[in-house]
Amino acid sequence: MKIQLALDRMEISEAIELTRKVEDSVDWIEVGTSLIKEFGMASVGEMKQAFPAKTIVADIKTIDNARYEFEMCFEAGADVATVMGVSPLVTIEACMEVAGRYNKTVMIDLLNTTEHQKRDLMKYKNAVFCEHVSKDQQEELGASNHGVVDKNLYGPDMTIAAAGGITLDSLDSLRKTLNPSIVIIGSAITKAENPAEAAAKFKCVEAK
Amino acid sequence: MKIQLALDRMEISEAIELTRKVEDSVDWIEVGTSLIKEFGMASVGEMKQAFPAKTIVADIKTIDNARYEFEMCFEAGADVATVMGVSPLVTIEACMEVAGRYNKTVMIDLLNTTEHQKRDLMKYKNAVFCEHVSKDQQEELGASNHGVVDKNLYGPDMTIAAAGGITLDSLDSLRKTLNPSIVIIGSAITKAENPAEAAAKFKCVEAK
Repeated sequence: MKIQLALDRMEISEAIELTRKVEDSVDWIEVGTSLIKEFGMASVGEMKQAFPAKTIVADIKTIDNARYEFEMCFEAGADVATVMGVSPLVTIEACMEVAGRYNKTVMIDLLNTTEHQKRDLMKYKNAVFCEHVSKDQQEELGASNHGVVDKNLYGPDMTIAAAGGITLDSLDSLRKTLNPSIVIIGSAITKAENPAEAAAKFKCVEAK
Repeated sequence: MKIQLALDRMEISEAIELTRKVEDSVDWIEVGTSLIKEFGMASVGEMKQAFPAKTIVADIKTIDNARYEFEMCFEAGADVATVMGVSPLVTIEACMEVAGRYNKTVMIDLLNTTEHQKRDLMKYKNAVFCEHVSKDQQEELGASNHGVVDKNLYGPDMTIAAAGGITLDSLDSLRKTLNPSIVIIGSAITKAENPAEAAAKFKCVEAK
């Protein structure tokens, strides 16, 4: 199980400073959508420059203009970029094509994606599938439940990620149900009193 | 009928220069998603500063983190910001709340939104509803057909916009079918040999 650190709602300099404190405990570093929309591709470029050995995920949440956005992310230094599962299939197809050309990875964000749409996406076997309870669903509804996901949709070799309000407490049940290859942790690390300690604890649970 | 000029896939300085040439013929100026994702909120701020009297649309395509993204757009100078119709309803609800607080406008982008989802959105009577054939659908499938939209979904006082590959030729049939209050024009102006002339022609048709 890999830990992806999600960086959101902060300055680029804060993101770099915070990541320095926790980098030994995390595997992938996500430049959050809020950083991209606030600061543009500079956020991706500066994070890759600061952490060249890490896998950088650009959470660009593409839903159109796929070639342009994905090329922009990979040119800026991203190793993984995200596309919405609710996009038209032609958009996801274009993301896969660009990622293949750059030898990079597509993460399909399944936020609000129906079972029916998911079935259509299962042909993209090289993608990472991110089961995602959105920030707004967490904050407005208090929801952070990945328990309802039908794991049978996925083939045995497919890569699953999980995002949305994951804490040390919820990680254990998540392993028992969805058992994702990648867990995406945001505020449970970034807003912890001691982020290095919090990240180290996730690393311990993950290594169990 | 208002004309919204969509600015995409260019530098901020190019966007300003191009808009100066056509500003007399357009009503709303859209800072395209590609500008926001490439240059961040500076794109919105610089466009508002250059054209303070114009209505600036931030095509931020929010699908999560609604409060943060919408506040960011309005603080940067946007008058209108976009949210995806495929978002969870709590996200759209949050956008409406923020826009109400700032006395600004929400545009709901209906790209890939089902009829069922649209029905749920009809309660947001103050929003602008944007019927949108995506760039990827146009480029990959050659599609640019708004003809299939069921106009009966909309109440008589609701504001409809249309986007996606609209040309001078297609504008006439669009008026006869969807008859949107706002037509969003991108490359038919920005990529014209003479953008000022192209915009003026749209203005003439629009004023008919």
